[in-house]
Amino acid sequence: MEHLEGKQSILAALEARQRRFDVILIRHGTHEEKIRDVLDRAAAMGVPIRYVDSRELDAMSHGATHGGVLAVVSAKPRMTFDQLAARLDAIHEPPLLLLLEGIEDSRNLGFTIRSAEALGAHAVMIKKHLWDFDAVEIARPSSGAYERMPLVQIDNVDPLVALQRRGVRLLGCLAGVSRTLYQEKLTGPCMLAIGGEKRGLSGAVRAICDGFLTIPTAEGAASLSLSHAAAIILGEARRQRISP
Amino acid sequence: MEHLEGKQSILAALEARQRRFDVILIRHGTHEEKIRDVLDRAAAMGVPIRYVDSRELDAMSHGATHGGVLAVVSAKPRMTFDQLAARLDAIHEPPLLLLLEGIEDSRNLGFTIRSAEALGAHAVMIKKHLWDFDAVEIARPSSGAYERMPLVQIDNVDPLVALQRRGVRLLGCLAGVSRTLYQEKLTGPCMLAIGGEKRGLSGAVRAICDGFLTIPTAEGAASLSLSHAAAIILGEARRQRISP
Repeated sequence: MEHLEGKQSILAALEARQRRFDVILIRHGTHEEKIRDVLDRAAAMGVPIRYVDSRELDAMSHGATHGGVLAVVSAKPRMTFDQLAARLDAIHEPPLLLLLEGIEDSRNLGFTIRSAEALGAHAVMIKKHLWDFDAVEIARPSSGAYERMPLVQIDNVDPLVALQRRGVRLLGCLAGVSRTLYQEKLTGPCMLAIGGEKRGLSGAVRAICDGFLTIPTAEGAASLSLSHAAAIILGEARRQRISP
Repeated sequence: MEHLEGKQSILAALEARQRRFDVILIRHGTHEEKIRDVLDRAAAMGVPIRYVDSRELDAMSHGATHGGVLAVVSAKPRMTFDQLAARLDAIHEPPLLLLLEGIEDSRNLGFTIRSAEALGAHAVMIKKHLWDFDAVEIARPSSGAYERMPLVQIDNVDPLVALQRRGVRLLGCLAGVSRTLYQEKLTGPCMLAIGGEKRGLSGAVRAICDGFLTIPTAEGAASLSLSHAAAIILGEARRQRISP
C-alpha cells in the first residue's frame, strides 16, 4: 500500500480510477467545505472515510503539506507494453513519448511527469522500478499528473525496438552532438530519450537510437538538469506540433 | 556565514571569487587526488584547510552529499542595481533577464538558476530576501551556477521601471492569455517575469508589464511548475537568439 497526501493528489487519483482506495483519513476539525469534492467523490465510489486526530495523520505522513487529508491506496499500476501500444493506436496524433534513464530523485520525476503531461506527452517510460521511488514525493510535485500519466517500466530495450517497428523514432539527447533539437523534426511519432546527470544514456539505448540531438547551452555553464532538459525538449516538440 | 558542501559548489565559489572563504574542511582519509583542484586553488588563494573527522563534517552538513569537503564562507553577495546596469552595458548582446516572484523552494531556485545560466540569462532578479532560502539547498542543484549567476534582490518595482527606461521590455508570463511565447519576439532586451504557483505575478508587476505571454499547455493538465516554466521560456528565448 501507498499513501497519498493532500487534496490535490487524492482527487486526481480518485478521478484517474487507477488505484484501489482502502480508506481516506481526515483530520478532526478539517473544514468539510474545503474538501467537499474529495468527500463527494469518495462517497460516490464507496471509499470509506475515517476521522483521525492530527497526531495520527502526522505520524503517517511525510511532511506538513497533507492539509488534513491522507489516503491509503494501492500502488499506481504501471502500463504494460500492450496497453501502451493500444493507447498509441487510439490517439489521433503522432505519439510523443519520453524515456528517462538514470533518474534518481522522486521529486524531479514528479516535476518531469507534470511537465510531460502539460506539454502533451502520451506516456513516460522509465528504466527503473517504480518502487525505487518514494510515491508521495513523486505525487506531490506532479500536481496530479502522476495519477493520470501512463508510466511504462522497461527492463531492457525490447519495448523500444518494438515501438521503433511501429514507426516511432527514438531520439537520444546528448551533450556535445552537433545537431540541435531545433534542427530536428519532432512533429512525427517520436520517443525522446534523456539520461541521468551522472552517466547519461546507456550504451544499450544509444546503440539503437535513430538520431541524436542536443540542447545548445551557453559556454562555461553547467549542464542542464535531467528534469529541466526534459521540459525544454518537450516544450520544443510542443512548439513544433502546435505551430501552424 | 554560510556553508558550501561538495567539491563542485566549492570549486565554483573559489573560481567566482565573490565569497570570502574562512576555511575549507576536509574529512580525514579523503583521497587528495579527488579534490586536487580544490586544494590547489585554495592554496593559491591562501584559504586555510583543516582536516576533520567525518562526525564533525556530518554534524555541520545537510546531508551525505558533501563527499568529504565543506567550506565555511561569507554569503553570496547580491548584485546592486548599479552593478547590474554596468554589466548590461558591458555585454555585447541584448540583455535577457529572469524575474522570479513568489518562489518558495530553495532547490527549485537552484535548478532554475542553473538553467538560466545554461540558457544565456544575464541575471536573475528575485523579490525575496536571499536569506529566506537555504544556501546549501540552492547551491547543490545549481551545479555551480549559483556562484556565477548575478542575483539581484528587489523590494519594489523601481528597478524594473529603471530597466524599462533602459530599453528592457518586461514580459509577464500568465496562464490563460492568448499570446504565446512563440508569438513573442524574445531576441531584443527583455526581462521575463514568472510568478509563484500559488499567487502568480503580483499586481504591482502586472501593472507595469509591457506585454504578457503564456506557455500553451495540454487541456486538462496541471499547470507547469514555476521552475519548469522558467526553463521552457528561457529555452524559447535561446532558440530565437541562436536561430539564424
